[in-house]
Amino acid sequence: MIENKIEIIPGFSWFGKNIGIKDNTLDFGGILADTVCNAAGVFTKNTMAGPPVIVGKEHLRDGKLQAVIVNSKNANVATSTQGIKDAKIICSLVAESCGIQTEMVLPSSTGVIGKRLPMDVITNGCKSLKQDFGKTEQHIIDFAHSIMTTDTRTKWVTGKAGNAKILGIAKGSGMIEPNMATMLCYFMSDAKIESDKLHQILTNAVNKSFNRISVDTDTSTSDTVIIMCNGLAGPVDLNEFESTLTEMSIFLAKEIASDGEGATKLIELVVSGAQTQEQALLTAKSVINSPLIKTAIYGSDPNWGRFVMAIGKVFQYSVNISDLKIYFGKGADRIRLDAEVLDRNEVPLDKISAILGNNEVHIEIVIGKGLYSEKVWGCDLTEGYVNINAHYTT
Amino acid sequence: MIENKIEIIPGFSWFGKNIGIKDNTLDFGGILADTVCNAAGVFTKNTMAGPPVIVGKEHLRDGKLQAVIVNSKNANVATSTQGIKDAKIICSLVAESCGIQTEMVLPSSTGVIGKRLPMDVITNGCKSLKQDFGKTEQHIIDFAHSIMTTDTRTKWVTGKAGNAKILGIAKGSGMIEPNMATMLCYFMSDAKIESDKLHQILTNAVNKSFNRISVDTDTSTSDTVIIMCNGLAGPVDLNEFESTLTEMSIFLAKEIASDGEGATKLIELVVSGAQTQEQALLTAKSVINSPLIKTAIYGSDPNWGRFVMAIGKVFQYSVNISDLKIYFGKGADRIRLDAEVLDRNEVPLDKISAILGNNEVHIEIVIGKGLYSEKVWGCDLTEGYVNINAHYTT
Repeated sequence: MIENKIEIIPGFSWFGKNIGIKDNTLDFGGILADTVCNAAGVFTKNTMAGPPVIVGKEHLRDGKLQAVIVNSKNANVATSTQGIKDAKIICSLVAESCGIQTEMVLPSSTGVIGKRLPMDVITNGCKSLKQDFGKTEQHIIDFAHSIMTTDTRTKWVTGKAGNAKILGIAKGSGMIEPNMATMLCYFMSDAKIESDKLHQILTNAVNKSFNRISVDTDTSTSDTVIIMCNGLAGPVDLNEFESTLTEMSIFLAKEIASDGEGATKLIELVVSGAQTQEQALLTAKSVINSPLIKTAIYGSDPNWGRFVMAIGKVFQYSVNISDLKIYFGKGADRIRLDAEVLDRNEVPLDKISAILGNNEVHIEIVIGKGLYSEKVWGCDLTEGYVNINAHYTT
Repeated sequence: MIENKIEIIPGFSWFGKNIGIKDNTLDFGGILADTVCNAAGVFTKNTMAGPPVIVGKEHLRDGKLQAVIVNSKNANVATSTQGIKDAKIICSLVAESCGIQTEMVLPSSTGVIGKRLPMDVITNGCKSLKQDFGKTEQHIIDFAHSIMTTDTRTKWVTGKAGNAKILGIAKGSGMIEPNMATMLCYFMSDAKIESDKLHQILTNAVNKSFNRISVDTDTSTSDTVIIMCNGLAGPVDLNEFESTLTEMSIFLAKEIASDGEGATKLIELVVSGAQTQEQALLTAKSVINSPLIKTAIYGSDPNWGRFVMAIGKVFQYSVNISDLKIYFGKGADRIRLDAEVLDRNEVPLDKISAILGNNEVHIEIVIGKGLYSEKVWGCDLTEGYVNINAHYTT
C-alpha cells in the first residue's frame, strides 16, 4: 500500500529555502538524519557524470550517509576541476554547521550544465544551516519545492513495510531517459537494513521504474536515486520492503513522465510476446521514444501505422506483421488491431482517437509468441517542450 | 562538379500528374527508359518494409529495370496481403500501357501508413499512361513535385562523370533516419556500368550521405534509393562516377535534412578523434538526435552543456572531459571550447549564440586522440514539427 502523501519519518530533518542562485524561488534544500544511516544509491551512467555524482559516489562507498544537500538552477556539470572542489566545499560547510563528518554528506545539483556554482551565494546560504532543518510536514514540502527545475509540481510518495515507513521525494521533467535520470529521488526510511542488501533492493526497484521512463531520450549527467535507513523501526521483511519500494519508485517514475516538459498525457506501454528481454525493451523504447508517435498521441491522431514503423525499426529482430497485435486502451473498451482487422480493412479510427484523447493512454503491443515482456512510461511531444527548451539559458 | 539544377538525360521520359488520391496536388509520377537499364537499389532496413519495397526488391533481383512508378499521399504499408497484390497490379498496368515487362517496373509509395491504396483511382490514372511521359524539363519538374509529401520544396541535382550525365531527384522531410528514410531518391544516368558494380557504388554513396542524416530518428518503412543507367554514353571511370554520385547523394541528403519537417536550420556535425568508427558514429548520432540540442539550436540558445550530456550518453565508450573540444562555426571565426577555456571560465556565450543563429550551423566535436571520424547532418526541432505531426491523418 502506497499513498501520494507526505509521512514524517522519525529521525529525519528537512529544509528548503531560497538563497538566490538564479531568482527568488526555493533553490537550496537538505535532509539530515539524527544518526548515521545505512545507505545506497544509483547514479547516471552518462560518462560525463557531474562533480556532485562523482563526490556522492565517493561518500557512499562505505554504505553510510547522514545528510543530503541539494541545489537547483545549476547542475555543476562540465565545470572543470573547480566543480569537484566546489562539491566538496559544500559538503564540508554542511558538515561543519551540523556537526557531522564531511564524508557523510551526499551533494546533488540540478539545472543548467556548464556554469560554475555561485560559491559566495552558497557559502552564505550555509551559515547557521543547522537552524534551517526541521521535522514538520512544511519542512518536507519546502525541500520538495527546492529541488524542482522545470517540474510543474512536487512529487512524493509514502509506503510501509512492516513497522517501517518509507518516504520518497523526487524531481524530474526534462533530460529524462534515466539509465540508472536529471531526475533526483531521495527515499528515507526508519527500517533497519544492511547497506549491501539495501543497494540490491534499490537497484531492482530502479530497474523496474526510473530506468523504464523516457521524456526525451536525453540521459542526464546528474541522475541520482538515494535511500537512507536509520534503523529506528527495527528489521523488516526484505521482500515486503523491496515490493513497496518498487511500487513507490514506479509511482514517482510515472509522476516524472506525466510531468515531462510540455507533456499533456502520460503513456503507459506494454510490449509482450518478445523472443528475448532485450527485444521487449528495445521495441518498447523504440515506440515510447518515437517523435512521430508522441506527436500523434498529442493530437489524438489515430495514426496507428506509425506504431508499425517504430516496431520495425528494431532492426536486430524481425517481427511478422501477421503476428502483430496492437491494443489501444484498457479494460472492456479496448480496441484490438491485428491482421484479421486489417484484412477486413475495418480499423475503428474514431474509437482509437477517443482513447488517445485521455490523460493516460494505455497501449499494449504483442509482437509474437515469445515469453518476454516490458512495461515502460513516456509522454507526448508538444509545442510546449520546444518552447521550454529553445531558450532555457537565455 | 555537381549542380543544383535539372539536366535532361538522353533516353529517359518522365511524368507527374494528379489522379486524386487525396486532394488536387500532383500525386502520381513515373520514369520510363527507352531501353532496359542496368540498375541497383538500396532499401529501408525497417523490418516492416512496405509492399512496394518488397515488390521492388523482387523486380530488381536481376539488376535490370526499365521504369519507376510512384504515388504520394499513401505509403501502401501495413495493408495486409492486399498491399502486395496492389503493388504488383500497378506494375502490370504500367507495363501494359508502356509495352514493357511487369518485372522491369519498380513501384514506390509514400504517405500515410496503414491505409489501402485507392485502386480504382490508380487504375483510372494508369489509362493511356504512355502519353503522359515526355522528355522535357517540365516533365521532370512535374515528376519531382508528384513524389512530395510534407516536403516544402523539390530536390534535384545534376552531375557528370566523363561523357556521362547523372540526374538525381529526391523527396523526404519527416520519418527520416535512413538506414538504407521516407525518403525516395531516383538517379538516372546514361553511363554504361554493370549492375553489380553499380550496386557497390550506390551502397558506398548512400552510406556517406542518406545513411548519415536524421530529422526525427524514425526510420521509414518505404525508404528507397534507385539508380538506372541506360549505357547510351558508354563506359566511364568508375572512381569518378562513384565520387560524383557520392557528392550528389550528400547534396540531396542535406536538402532533405534542411527541409526536415518544421526545420529552420541545417546542422552539419563532424565528430573526430574517436577510438573506433562505431564510437564516432554513435557519438555523432547521439548529438544530432538529441531533442535538447535540437531545440537549443532552434532558439540560438548557447546551452553548450547539452553537448556534454549527449556525448556522455554513449555509455559504451568513455570520453575524458579534459580531451574534449567543441568548435562552433567554421573558418577563422569559429569558437573553440576546451578544458582550458572552461578553466578560465571564459565561454563566449554571445558568440556561440550568434553562430547558432545561422541557417546552416557547423559544429565539430573532438572527443579524444583517436583516428576515426564521421560527418552527419540534421535539423532543429521546432513547434512546426509538432504541428505537422500531431494531426497528420486527421
